[in-house]
Amino acid sequence: MKMYGNWRSAAAFRVRIALNLKGIAYEESFIDLDAGDQHKPEFRAINPQGAVPALFDGDGPPLTQSLAILDYLEETHPGVPLLPAEPRARARARSLAQVVACDTHPLYVPRVRTYLMEAYGLPKERMMEFVRNAFTTGLKTLETRLATEAGTGRFCQGEAVSHADLCLVSLWVGTGIFGVETAPFPTVHRIAETCLAEEPFAKAHPLRQPGAPA
Amino acid sequence: MKMYGNWRSAAAFRVRIALNLKGIAYEESFIDLDAGDQHKPEFRAINPQGAVPALFDGDGPPLTQSLAILDYLEETHPGVPLLPAEPRARARARSLAQVVACDTHPLYVPRVRTYLMEAYGLPKERMMEFVRNAFTTGLKTLETRLATEAGTGRFCQGEAVSHADLCLVSLWVGTGIFGVETAPFPTVHRIAETCLAEEPFAKAHPLRQPGAPA
Repeated sequence: MKMYGNWRSAAAFRVRIALNLKGIAYEESFIDLDAGDQHKPEFRAINPQGAVPALFDGDGPPLTQSLAILDYLEETHPGVPLLPAEPRARARARSLAQVVACDTHPLYVPRVRTYLMEAYGLPKERMMEFVRNAFTTGLKTLETRLATEAGTGRFCQGEAVSHADLCLVSLWVGTGIFGVETAPFPTVHRIAETCLAEEPFAKAHPLRQPGAPA
Repeated sequence: MKMYGNWRSAAAFRVRIALNLKGIAYEESFIDLDAGDQHKPEFRAINPQGAVPALFDGDGPPLTQSLAILDYLEETHPGVPLLPAEPRARARARSLAQVVACDTHPLYVPRVRTYLMEAYGLPKERMMEFVRNAFTTGLKTLETRLATEAGTGRFCQGEAVSHADLCLVSLWVGTGIFGVETAPFPTVHRIAETCLAEEPFAKAHPLRQPGAPA
């Protein structure tokens, strides 16, 4: 497969982990988000939203939106499952994934950060309060649920990796990039460390991709 | 089934439509978001995130996050499918749904609007610029994709209702509530009108729920 991504993108990170876990060969082209390459006509022709990731599987049209891509990979490459089989457990794994991918990550993407600074004249440091609030709100929800719900195990949902872990890890590595306090979230921390100790996660890490700071 | 929702919630609206389309009997308790009932301990015990919808199917734990609930209903009540069978078509329907449910709707929920006004001292009218920008950005992506991609038919994905339409309609009705200009989005408009002409959509409409303004 062929993916358009970016070293820093949390959404591209999730998809890289899934591809690695499922053993799917892929190559990634890195779109320079800081240079605005996502807005150039040649990339807009791939994804009119101007967002990464976009994934090509053979000759088909581009697949976009990280959770939709994860479900597509689940349906077309079920050999290494990344969702549990039982409907309620699947729903819980998906719900935890969406706390990150719907309610948290979209609040701190580049276009929102830029909008806050340009529309309201906020200096970067004040804009970052919004970003850190988004992280903290999402992490609080994850921590409360993971620490209290019966479904939590070694991973977010039981003893096997699921979409929830891919999303959790993609949020967790952002805490370092954006300077978010992590001490109040020990269960999230434990699961993130457990995941990142595994090679399919580790080699997908943003800081191990081309373009990342040394 | 038993749902906790709110007349105005776009996420609860999506789930009501799915329940109606699948012919699943349910009753809904309406959480007063303006009164802050979502933050009371008795509701936090149901959903620590303090967000609607939360759905109970029998004795199980609450199901949360609207897209996770839609997938759960799909898996447990497949008789009236709300996703196409073919993986690429499913991925496209999901991607369009996520343009709304991930990249647009989470930007204008009450907690974000409140944060902008409280943290930055913005008057309501200036905060609303952020809300309308979120709507317009999401609607532009939907319009471009729906008007140009081969998969579009009578509905977002071909000739049958899918999760994409539930999400599209939940965004569309918000344009009236938040005063968003809709003239640039004729394809979105056409599909929204097509959906809302059907009774399972119409009777789920926010303005037909208890608590809505007359």
